[in-house]
Amino acid sequence: MKLLKVDTVNEVKEKLKNYFGEKGSEAPAENVPLRSAVSRYLAENIYSDMDIPHFTRSVVDGYAVNAKDTFGIGDSSPVFLDIVGSVEMGKSCNISMKQGEAVYIPTGGMLPEGADAVVMIEYVEALDDRTIAVYKSTAPNSGIMNQGDDFKKGQLLFCKGHRLTVKDVGMLAAIGKDYLNVFQKPRVSILSTGDEIIDIAKIPDQGEVRDINSYTIAAFAEHTGAIIEHIEKVPDISLPLRKALKKAIAESDIVLLSGGSSAGNKDITAEVIDSMGQPGVITHGIAMKPGKPTIIGIIDEVSKTGQNRGTDEVAAQKLVVGLPGHPMAAIVAYDIIVNYFIRQYWFANNEEPLQLTARITENVPGGEGRETYQLVSLKRTFSKAGETVQEWIAEPIHAKSGSISQLMTADGYVKIASLSEGIREGSMAEVTLIGR
Amino acid sequence: MKLLKVDTVNEVKEKLKNYFGEKGSEAPAENVPLRSAVSRYLAENIYSDMDIPHFTRSVVDGYAVNAKDTFGIGDSSPVFLDIVGSVEMGKSCNISMKQGEAVYIPTGGMLPEGADAVVMIEYVEALDDRTIAVYKSTAPNSGIMNQGDDFKKGQLLFCKGHRLTVKDVGMLAAIGKDYLNVFQKPRVSILSTGDEIIDIAKIPDQGEVRDINSYTIAAFAEHTGAIIEHIEKVPDISLPLRKALKKAIAESDIVLLSGGSSAGNKDITAEVIDSMGQPGVITHGIAMKPGKPTIIGIIDEVSKTGQNRGTDEVAAQKLVVGLPGHPMAAIVAYDIIVNYFIRQYWFANNEEPLQLTARITENVPGGEGRETYQLVSLKRTFSKAGETVQEWIAEPIHAKSGSISQLMTADGYVKIASLSEGIREGSMAEVTLIGR
Repeated sequence: MKLLKVDTVNEVKEKLKNYFGEKGSEAPAENVPLRSAVSRYLAENIYSDMDIPHFTRSVVDGYAVNAKDTFGIGDSSPVFLDIVGSVEMGKSCNISMKQGEAVYIPTGGMLPEGADAVVMIEYVEALDDRTIAVYKSTAPNSGIMNQGDDFKKGQLLFCKGHRLTVKDVGMLAAIGKDYLNVFQKPRVSILSTGDEIIDIAKIPDQGEVRDINSYTIAAFAEHTGAIIEHIEKVPDISLPLRKALKKAIAESDIVLLSGGSSAGNKDITAEVIDSMGQPGVITHGIAMKPGKPTIIGIIDEVSKTGQNRGTDEVAAQKLVVGLPGHPMAAIVAYDIIVNYFIRQYWFANNEEPLQLTARITENVPGGEGRETYQLVSLKRTFSKAGETVQEWIAEPIHAKSGSISQLMTADGYVKIASLSEGIREGSMAEVTLIGR
Repeated sequence: MKLLKVDTVNEVKEKLKNYFGEKGSEAPAENVPLRSAVSRYLAENIYSDMDIPHFTRSVVDGYAVNAKDTFGIGDSSPVFLDIVGSVEMGKSCNISMKQGEAVYIPTGGMLPEGADAVVMIEYVEALDDRTIAVYKSTAPNSGIMNQGDDFKKGQLLFCKGHRLTVKDVGMLAAIGKDYLNVFQKPRVSILSTGDEIIDIAKIPDQGEVRDINSYTIAAFAEHTGAIIEHIEKVPDISLPLRKALKKAIAESDIVLLSGGSSAGNKDITAEVIDSMGQPGVITHGIAMKPGKPTIIGIIDEVSKTGQNRGTDEVAAQKLVVGLPGHPMAAIVAYDIIVNYFIRQYWFANNEEPLQLTARITENVPGGEGRETYQLVSLKRTFSKAGETVQEWIAEPIHAKSGSISQLMTADGYVKIASLSEGIREGSMAEVTLIGR
């Protein structure tokens, strides 16, 4: 057992870096079809396979022309051009044209050789099958999109670690990425302890409460990219907890212990995690509010390798986190520690989470040497009469221990640095959204 | 065929109301486990099955007391109380206590009869096994959460139509909702037309382009709660289109036609939709920018019912929408029309989408009698040096037809009413997020 020192959030991140390395870019990956890739994290850099567009195309319906044929013309002084062909959609354009000539071209059609602009159909009058009058002066490159205007062959479009969004799908379709290499989802198991906890389908007797935390944490874990391996209720006693944790570590990448709220629970949890293997518990508590009684352990899975199977080698490093019993503290600790860990070491992702700026409705004091993560509820409102644009207001949540109705109003948190005096009522604060 | 009048967005909504009724509260539903319910829409009102908490519980570790025993005491003048028992976690508390007595109680434990407060362990000194000294005056109800403080049995917690979020899961677990009745996902099929469109896995020849729109629309449709039945490439000719559309209507609830960009395409689409059944095309274009060339049709599926199967009855009303060919216009039309339709008539949902307030970086003019939906790209930045809180800025996207790299920067849109002059550079605008 290590000394019972409390770490800052940064110290925890440093310790994780020492054990898991600089980045999770070597995390296991898998190939998925584009249509299943939204909200997954790229395990490869994505480059364009060709110039897009890969041919110079018209962006209007009209006639391909030589722009200089149209210089100086107008409504009363048109230029007359000979129609020498018509571009077919989806076909390579073999027509080549000279000055004084024009070719009909639909939107998306391939520009004929010799043309450098497209004049819209609205400014053209067809005199007969072979002649048009053009009534508008047209600049070179107008009405067209040149080859590679959008992006060039070989151009880096998305970096490894990027979380794919709905809006990325069009771009990936454009470059023909029907399958993508994405990072695998870590398997998370949740063990809930506490003698008062019962399965949610049961009707609680006096003194019992349903297993709220496991379901809440599972929902957050799935939302942040994990896959739930299993959820199990375990007695709050050393031996059965030891057995269940050993099995969970073997079957999962990350094990979360959703603690009962009794005082002795934390000690048992730390002791049992520490007994699972090396290096064991690395953090006995975090200087954050809420979330202080968070315990972090790392367990090396060792396998024999080498020619005579005489060399011990670390096969996998499993993360075990004892989360606080208070639901709000559990959510904050999940987001700040576990979600950070998954994004960093499973998804190689450093993108900022979505933040809003909101006016805070009351003073939020600093945490006296601890980082404070004040959960807030967001509402949209007009700041004063006559305003045309609404603003977000953030109401701090002061929950009694275990208040579920308050928990469900939490939209995000405001972070207050450990040495800050806090945020004054009425000032603007940055809110990091959770569970969105 | 109806007259080729363009409808406003509100007129379209009125027409949909005429055909589909006031609300989608009778849409088909299904039962799903709580763990699969996030981002689904409730098909039932949810009421609490019991008081929560369903017994008065301690929110700290300490001693249950009669508050009046502690009035007027302090550090130098403690009160001495007799320990008459200890509350066990998860057990009904059968201890009853009188004035002058105290019972040990852990966080979450059930308050003994006769007690009305819990004094924290920090303010108590155990003199021996049977006596404690209390050093802090404690008010009635302090340190406890009364039965029903969180919510009462029978209280309405969530309304039909509510979209379930990660943060709702804890509350549903608390009231034992292990299964929920949610609205079924509508089945959406996407037919893409246009001679230049090829499968995304193929390498396009000169003149060909990959099927970007179908994949983009499918991603948006799945994100907004639909299930993709199939995506099919159909020749842009009346007969095969008719055949494919007929099959898609039979197999799906909603069919989206992702149009080629050529001029004649719109007419063929409208004609083919209209030939599918009654009432046929109800809107030939919408007064919005972008998104004007959007065609909407409704096709009644009729079945014979009645004793002698002699009565025609509408079995199902299918929605068919011809989306514009321009990817940006397709996205806006999807969000304003199809997403609205699904939320209204499949999910009975009227909740506001997530909006941000952002500073707009250039003038956005109004649309001369058309509602304008200006797609914007969001960035987070400090408005000036010395600011401690960042703000969002919204950069309008001016895309050439079919520019995919610009499309992928669209985070949302700013709506400008049809008679508005627009939004001035530097002013604050409300941005509705899409694809989040």
